[in-house]
Amino acid sequence: MEIDTQLVLSPPNPDVLLDRTVVVIDVLRATSVIIYAMSQGASEVIPLANVEEALQMAKALPQGSVLLGGERGSVKIPGFDLGNSPREYVTGKVRDKKLILTTTNGTKAFGLVSSGKEVLVGSFLNIGAVTQRCLELDRDLLIFPSGDHGGFSLEDTVCGGMLVNLILEKGKKPISLTDASQCAQIVYQRFKNNLLEAFRLSRHGKELIDRGFEEDLAYCAQIDIASLVPVFREGVIRRR
Amino acid sequence: MEIDTQLVLSPPNPDVLLDRTVVVIDVLRATSVIIYAMSQGASEVIPLANVEEALQMAKALPQGSVLLGGERGSVKIPGFDLGNSPREYVTGKVRDKKLILTTTNGTKAFGLVSSGKEVLVGSFLNIGAVTQRCLELDRDLLIFPSGDHGGFSLEDTVCGGMLVNLILEKGKKPISLTDASQCAQIVYQRFKNNLLEAFRLSRHGKELIDRGFEEDLAYCAQIDIASLVPVFREGVIRRR
Repeated sequence: MEIDTQLVLSPPNPDVLLDRTVVVIDVLRATSVIIYAMSQGASEVIPLANVEEALQMAKALPQGSVLLGGERGSVKIPGFDLGNSPREYVTGKVRDKKLILTTTNGTKAFGLVSSGKEVLVGSFLNIGAVTQRCLELDRDLLIFPSGDHGGFSLEDTVCGGMLVNLILEKGKKPISLTDASQCAQIVYQRFKNNLLEAFRLSRHGKELIDRGFEEDLAYCAQIDIASLVPVFREGVIRRR
Repeated sequence: MEIDTQLVLSPPNPDVLLDRTVVVIDVLRATSVIIYAMSQGASEVIPLANVEEALQMAKALPQGSVLLGGERGSVKIPGFDLGNSPREYVTGKVRDKKLILTTTNGTKAFGLVSSGKEVLVGSFLNIGAVTQRCLELDRDLLIFPSGDHGGFSLEDTVCGGMLVNLILEKGKKPISLTDASQCAQIVYQRFKNNLLEAFRLSRHGKELIDRGFEEDLAYCAQIDIASLVPVFREGVIRRR
């Protein structure tokens, strides 16, 4: 198995994706929201790149069956039901609902990797389960941090590096790392005893603290509180 | 001063470059070659993206005044005078010569940053002098690793991270790091006591070893054997 990591958001070569497992990561906060919402009973999540699209899709679906969630500039979008804090997505609100989600980075990333053989949703919340699933699938892997406004994201790379590290620890077959995956693993090693330090050093983490979302950082730094590995296929994220 | 690092080769926003110092780094081996050749007396270096262009320009210049250097697939190009090993570029060969250079990664990078306010050539060979020059220029900085076939390069990032580290140590004004520069610094810290280990782990370093250029790795890992900081301007690299 080869593990590559796309350190900076850009469209990967679709041919490369055809045989790969892809893990999309947006720790702060889109993939943490998706995993948490689904662990609380949301039936599926539709990630969309823009607000207008999200509003239109919500209108087209039966009232009461759908929730609109997401952010721009880290804050809730006017007219939306929920923002982008995982702790908003509790059972009482999300059970059996379709969630339409649009965020600055994470929801765009899914569009770029839709030709992946299997596209998984990862974060610290389900990192152990993602590791297990990648090993079961036993294909070359592309770790896909969603980045920060198209640039490199420290916190997503730390999470990607933790996935590299866990696969190396638990895998039984030879595994080769690209330079980018080695980088991610090194960055993870630096912060493995204090994930929150990485969040607080990152541009995006600082922005969230400034805008009153510091609690979300601790929330998104929780390891293995969920055991599901959502899958993105034909525009929709489902349990499997 | 803000220090940003372009971890993966792509055209930066030209507007951002207008007020920035840019440091182009291709440790293995283009910028090591440029710095070494100029320290040995080469009068200037013209970095070109393709072989045909290089051959044509050499023909247009007076015979005896010019040397053709570079590689494809790490090996010397047929009809060229020199390959891409710094140790080939000794005084007896290069003194007072114009050097036309075309390589897989490094010479392309210069074309992408030509709108930078000041574009410097960096490697481990002149890292101390580059640090000093960046601090004198006292502008926001973009560190620009040339990457590996368009992807992330471990060895260039280690060198970029050393530059970040030295500027933080020696700078007297506040310095802010983007997430990407923090990443580069962390990767440097991992290898600071053994640069060769980073080279040997990198894809490109392994290729060089496979093709018989292992000696070049040790050559390119030498710190501060040159004190000049070549400048790229209007298509040509000169002493200042």
